[in-house]
Amino acid sequence: MFKTIEWTDAGVRMIDQRRLPREEVYVTCRTYQEVADAIREMVIRGAPAIGVAAAMGVALGVRDASANNLAALRDQFEQIAATIAKTRPTAVNLFWAIERMRRAFNQSTENLSRSESTEPESVVIARVRARLIEEAQHMLVEDIAINQAMGRHGAALLQDGSTVLTHCNAGALATGGYGTALGVIRAAVEQGKQLQVFADETRPFLQGARLTAWELAKDRIPVTLITDNMAGHFLHQGKIQAVIVGADRIAANGDVANKIGTYAVAVLAHENGVPFYVAAPLSTIDLSMATGDDIPIEERSPEEVKRWGGVSIAPENVAARHPAFDITPHRYITALITERGVIRPPYNETIPAVFQK
Amino acid sequence: MFKTIEWTDAGVRMIDQRRLPREEVYVTCRTYQEVADAIREMVIRGAPAIGVAAAMGVALGVRDASANNLAALRDQFEQIAATIAKTRPTAVNLFWAIERMRRAFNQSTENLSRSESTEPESVVIARVRARLIEEAQHMLVEDIAINQAMGRHGAALLQDGSTVLTHCNAGALATGGYGTALGVIRAAVEQGKQLQVFADETRPFLQGARLTAWELAKDRIPVTLITDNMAGHFLHQGKIQAVIVGADRIAANGDVANKIGTYAVAVLAHENGVPFYVAAPLSTIDLSMATGDDIPIEERSPEEVKRWGGVSIAPENVAARHPAFDITPHRYITALITERGVIRPPYNETIPAVFQK
Repeated sequence: MFKTIEWTDAGVRMIDQRRLPREEVYVTCRTYQEVADAIREMVIRGAPAIGVAAAMGVALGVRDASANNLAALRDQFEQIAATIAKTRPTAVNLFWAIERMRRAFNQSTENLSRSESTEPESVVIARVRARLIEEAQHMLVEDIAINQAMGRHGAALLQDGSTVLTHCNAGALATGGYGTALGVIRAAVEQGKQLQVFADETRPFLQGARLTAWELAKDRIPVTLITDNMAGHFLHQGKIQAVIVGADRIAANGDVANKIGTYAVAVLAHENGVPFYVAAPLSTIDLSMATGDDIPIEERSPEEVKRWGGVSIAPENVAARHPAFDITPHRYITALITERGVIRPPYNETIPAVFQK
Repeated sequence: MFKTIEWTDAGVRMIDQRRLPREEVYVTCRTYQEVADAIREMVIRGAPAIGVAAAMGVALGVRDASANNLAALRDQFEQIAATIAKTRPTAVNLFWAIERMRRAFNQSTENLSRSESTEPESVVIARVRARLIEEAQHMLVEDIAINQAMGRHGAALLQDGSTVLTHCNAGALATGGYGTALGVIRAAVEQGKQLQVFADETRPFLQGARLTAWELAKDRIPVTLITDNMAGHFLHQGKIQAVIVGADRIAANGDVANKIGTYAVAVLAHENGVPFYVAAPLSTIDLSMATGDDIPIEERSPEEVKRWGGVSIAPENVAARHPAFDITPHRYITALITERGVIRPPYNETIPAVFQK
């Protein structure tokens, strides 16, 4: 079995998702800058996986920082955090992970200032470093457990014998392991349900064709690849009984930012009376965003649309657009699947409530 | 300027649409079998262009047939027609063109049997051959004139300063020249309107990226390429004021078969209050089909989805589907643009009426 991401003494080790499915190659990021580059260039992608990568990047940067006093280390932490925060704007898990690392940093020094103020600063710094490494590794383990909990809650929504459509990759590769949307599918299959998966190929990066098809085939879950523009046709033909996707950020009202094309699939599911589910951990919900209109949408290079594998597929002199995400209004979303259970509308009531559980 | 298709003494000459936009290469089909192969392998595509190619293929086959009497020639005609008819099932223009050639064959021999029955059969055969070549060439000229008429009727629907979304290629390359959907855009631009075009790339063959972008750029009409899964996002954002597409077959009730993905765009336009227009000649309307459910949908090889430019983009052991067309129910279609004017609902009344004009 592959590992999406892991901490090693040499650095943060990741499977290179740009090279799947043709090559199963791992890269080790030996500096926090290399981790930032890997996130930006999509060696690793998927909101929860980006969160874990960001945490490990911060831990790596702080471990190798030159600071020899706590104030300097804190400055370096902020500079590392700022570098990693700049990589991708939409997935909130990135910022959530950095904030969690900041809290871990603060907690390990607060304990200290209360009870052990006679310790030399070098000991304090070593303790902060160890704590951040431990926290980042814990976030990986925790993420997998959260996905498994989502799977347990969500599996009941998928009927035995049904065909489930998914968009992009919200699988083991998009998370610490197991997956959000694909985790729910895995859990249903583990319960003995026979499921078929239709996977949108998900242009321009082809995460569906390259990643979702690859990891489902590895798990022997039957998967059929389609181009993005076929999803509506198969929904209209009654071939699909449920749609399940992940999320990059969810606003307080339930609007969902996810991979470009998600909005279209949600509208088409709604039009054809097919339930549309979003599986995401609470760390993907951003209560500071009132609606999806507030969520920043990353615009990537148009060259990523105009070229594939180094080969141009369009005239050189033509413009292209490349919004990497879109917003699905909450009215199209049948339910959100979280690690604390399945949430249904009205989301502006049920989302705050799930945080109180 | 390029020529999509033309009759030459050496055979039927076509621009090889598989190699655009990287290479502007022409191929000459020297036998009717080569014309059939060119249609099947999408050297030429687009319903009206397929119609012209079919007619020229029949003319070529009959010209070079070995028959030395009229009965044998008629048998060979039917065998040529059957070969060409088998190439692609959805675009009705193929069958319409063959039927028109059959009528031309019959008319040229009927005239004969009435008035010139003393002519030797070799003269009759020469006359049939000449008539079929003339008819096929006339269909090319006529197709361009029809497109220009559609342009005149449809241009009023596109507002100055607006952005128009199109799917696949319904341009000069899909027709004898000028185009159906792109013909309407061209006519509006010729009237002095400033238009922006958003072109869906149209997987898996990328007719939007490779062909629509190419021919609009040649005409200096501003075009922005997007992936198919972005169309919904831009419609939702209010960036698009009209959608216009072509058609491969239109049922008597106004349901439209067109390139896979058209249905999705129509639903998304409808959901966002954006008009959705279909530009097609009357030869694309098949009154023998009561609804779109009756229209055969071509299923092409899944390998065409799993590979691009010879490179695999998905695991080898994964299934894929490749319906080449879908059906857009008439309730999503704001108007049909034909060479005899713009038709609006109720289509089951207005479509029969336009044939009476």
